[in-house]
Amino acid sequence: MRDIETMVETVAKQARQAARTLAGASGGNKNKALEIMANLLIERSADLKRENKIDLIAAEKNGLTSAMIDRLRLTDKVIAGMADGLRQVAALPDPVGEITEMKPRPNDLKIGRMRVPLGVVGIIYESRPNVTADAAALCVKSGNAVILRGGSEARYSNRAIAAILAQGLSDAGLPQAAVQFIDTTDRAAVGALLKCNEFVDVIIPRGGKGLIKRVMEDSTIPVIKHLDGICHTYIDRYADLQMAENIAFNGKMHRTGVCNATETLLVHKAVANEFLPRITNLLSDSGCEIRGCEQTRDLSGASISVAQATDEDWRTEYLEAILSIKVVASLDDAMNHIEKYSSRHTEVIVTDNHNRAMRFLREVDSSSVMVNASSRFSDGFEYGLGAEMGISTDKLHVRGPVGLEGLTSLKYIVMGEGQVRG
Amino acid sequence: MRDIETMVETVAKQARQAARTLAGASGGNKNKALEIMANLLIERSADLKRENKIDLIAAEKNGLTSAMIDRLRLTDKVIAGMADGLRQVAALPDPVGEITEMKPRPNDLKIGRMRVPLGVVGIIYESRPNVTADAAALCVKSGNAVILRGGSEARYSNRAIAAILAQGLSDAGLPQAAVQFIDTTDRAAVGALLKCNEFVDVIIPRGGKGLIKRVMEDSTIPVIKHLDGICHTYIDRYADLQMAENIAFNGKMHRTGVCNATETLLVHKAVANEFLPRITNLLSDSGCEIRGCEQTRDLSGASISVAQATDEDWRTEYLEAILSIKVVASLDDAMNHIEKYSSRHTEVIVTDNHNRAMRFLREVDSSSVMVNASSRFSDGFEYGLGAEMGISTDKLHVRGPVGLEGLTSLKYIVMGEGQVRG
Repeated sequence: MRDIETMVETVAKQARQAARTLAGASGGNKNKALEIMANLLIERSADLKRENKIDLIAAEKNGLTSAMIDRLRLTDKVIAGMADGLRQVAALPDPVGEITEMKPRPNDLKIGRMRVPLGVVGIIYESRPNVTADAAALCVKSGNAVILRGGSEARYSNRAIAAILAQGLSDAGLPQAAVQFIDTTDRAAVGALLKCNEFVDVIIPRGGKGLIKRVMEDSTIPVIKHLDGICHTYIDRYADLQMAENIAFNGKMHRTGVCNATETLLVHKAVANEFLPRITNLLSDSGCEIRGCEQTRDLSGASISVAQATDEDWRTEYLEAILSIKVVASLDDAMNHIEKYSSRHTEVIVTDNHNRAMRFLREVDSSSVMVNASSRFSDGFEYGLGAEMGISTDKLHVRGPVGLEGLTSLKYIVMGEGQVRG
Repeated sequence: MRDIETMVETVAKQARQAARTLAGASGGNKNKALEIMANLLIERSADLKRENKIDLIAAEKNGLTSAMIDRLRLTDKVIAGMADGLRQVAALPDPVGEITEMKPRPNDLKIGRMRVPLGVVGIIYESRPNVTADAAALCVKSGNAVILRGGSEARYSNRAIAAILAQGLSDAGLPQAAVQFIDTTDRAAVGALLKCNEFVDVIIPRGGKGLIKRVMEDSTIPVIKHLDGICHTYIDRYADLQMAENIAFNGKMHRTGVCNATETLLVHKAVANEFLPRITNLLSDSGCEIRGCEQTRDLSGASISVAQATDEDWRTEYLEAILSIKVVASLDDAMNHIEKYSSRHTEVIVTDNHNRAMRFLREVDSSSVMVNASSRFSDGFEYGLGAEMGISTDKLHVRGPVGLEGLTSLKYIVMGEGQVRG
């Protein structure tokens, strides 16, 4: 236990040291490192696959599901994808060093802000080894040192990938310790990392709800996270019902296992008569199970069995082909339901009424609020961030998809010519 | 204990409810409330002074120092100052609802961000009752509900001020519960507030280091704070020494008891011979005690007694007329010292060399970094924020002086015309 703590603290100290150097590195230098990393991943793909094999054999022995084993597998295609990801991040504009809002004060001091790295980012993740490359690339590009703690089931793969990334840094003349991998399966390492306040600036957990919860509870370091995505699509009385059908169906069924899938559909009572039979038939034909309020059950397609939705349903992120539906009496009623049950990820209104759209945008307190678009668009790539570290449902620092900007902060800079306070 | 928890939770729940209404309130309506509050403070100044008297009598009985009693006292002038403060906040632009960066994506979705209130702000403060009005005004203007927990020594004064503020809200048609005061001297109330994660979005402590530390340790809610201000002024080898003298002297002596006062002076060895006798004589003549490194002691004015600075000195926020001085061998040496000992509040370089100024701005990791200006300028009013809730030395969310913007966050808004993901 003591040994693990010492090991983690050593890693964190080295990261802090490396972060200082990386913060001052030029964009060109960081991009060079990312390019070298991408090339090395391809060059050494045989080594990667050999290490990955060790994880795969252990996974089979430990009885992981075939879906889990699939996610673990490093094929040439997956490796090429990682390399592409690194190159895409290299191609993004460097967020660091941007100076904004530089304005003169009456005493002629020029005061503005400079975008700078956060410092040291700790990433705790599960399963897919490609997260190692993706997450590290975003950190390096934004000038942060990163400490990676992957799941034990991918230990050999993650270690091999991290070693290549560190090599890339070193080949580009940057400190290797800017990408470090905590190489132990001892879970105490996570606990130790979450207490390294002196050296680590932010923790980003990526994985299932259990992992996120544990990190939230144990971390004394600020955490950027989202716990779950209970996203709502509200069909207003002034909705174009064909559009509403498309958006509701796409929000739920385009991909069901993701955080931006719609989990609850709210339908204004004035259109429930017409809309509910249409949407429930469509969903049911695609194999979607429906749970609804009393009115939903009355108005759904005749041949469809709709279970009574419980309070628990409104609180549930199904992550599969199940949708809860509720008829609401008004826009306020819909927003009250969202206020009560939403996880503050993404909410959608479908309406042709301008004032109601604006009210929804203004008053709904979620990280993404949309008018007439599928909840599935809530995503860093779709938003044009070029990359995504995850999605934040918190309010402080960064909300919604987290790209490079979310990994930086703004410090004040003051340029004077000898001014003193009188 | 249970009762206190229930009471605090009730307050927090009401605040959350009020926050929803306030978030949707127009700027005009919020300003009207602030104007009414200002008028009421003046109108009821006799009541305020009567309540204040109860606190003053208790303070004398409890043996508070005369400085503390002075800070506690509500005179007509102090009350007029509070009213002016409210009017100044009313005159600031409304930060809420601003939509920025709205850009079309290739699928013609328009994606941008809207500035919105954080929700519920908990403020825990000591002594000066005018904080009650100042802090509440910033929260109301930024659309946040506020829960105030002042020190027990100002209980009657704070309660009376908070009641007037709540009255102002109500007279303007806004929910009274948007400004609430926790009316108990039981310290358990603070503990309970710090655990109200479900209803409170951010905690802002204002007061001594003991208070801030306690809040940091006990809060499960994000905290915006600064712990201390160990600010450095570095005199580079290329400094204009007259300018350096003005800035160093002003940074230390303009006001010694404040967080942006310079506590450590770093002097490049190439100018130490010339600069140290000048600055130490000047400081000493003004009654400033000096503690220095070996070289500083050798080079200080002959008649000045300079104690040997210890490691503890470099870590100390004196908050009085004491300055520690160290001679450094290089710019890097200066930045290393800052990295090791700074509290990340404010650091200053005095130099005529452009490249060294830019390196210092880029590489020093503090909330404010300055070239050729006194550290005393690190302040929301001096920065033109129009108001200040405090100063953050944290990196996430908000760094440096916290004005209205720091009390808001950006959510993504997406405007579509029926787009779905393909």
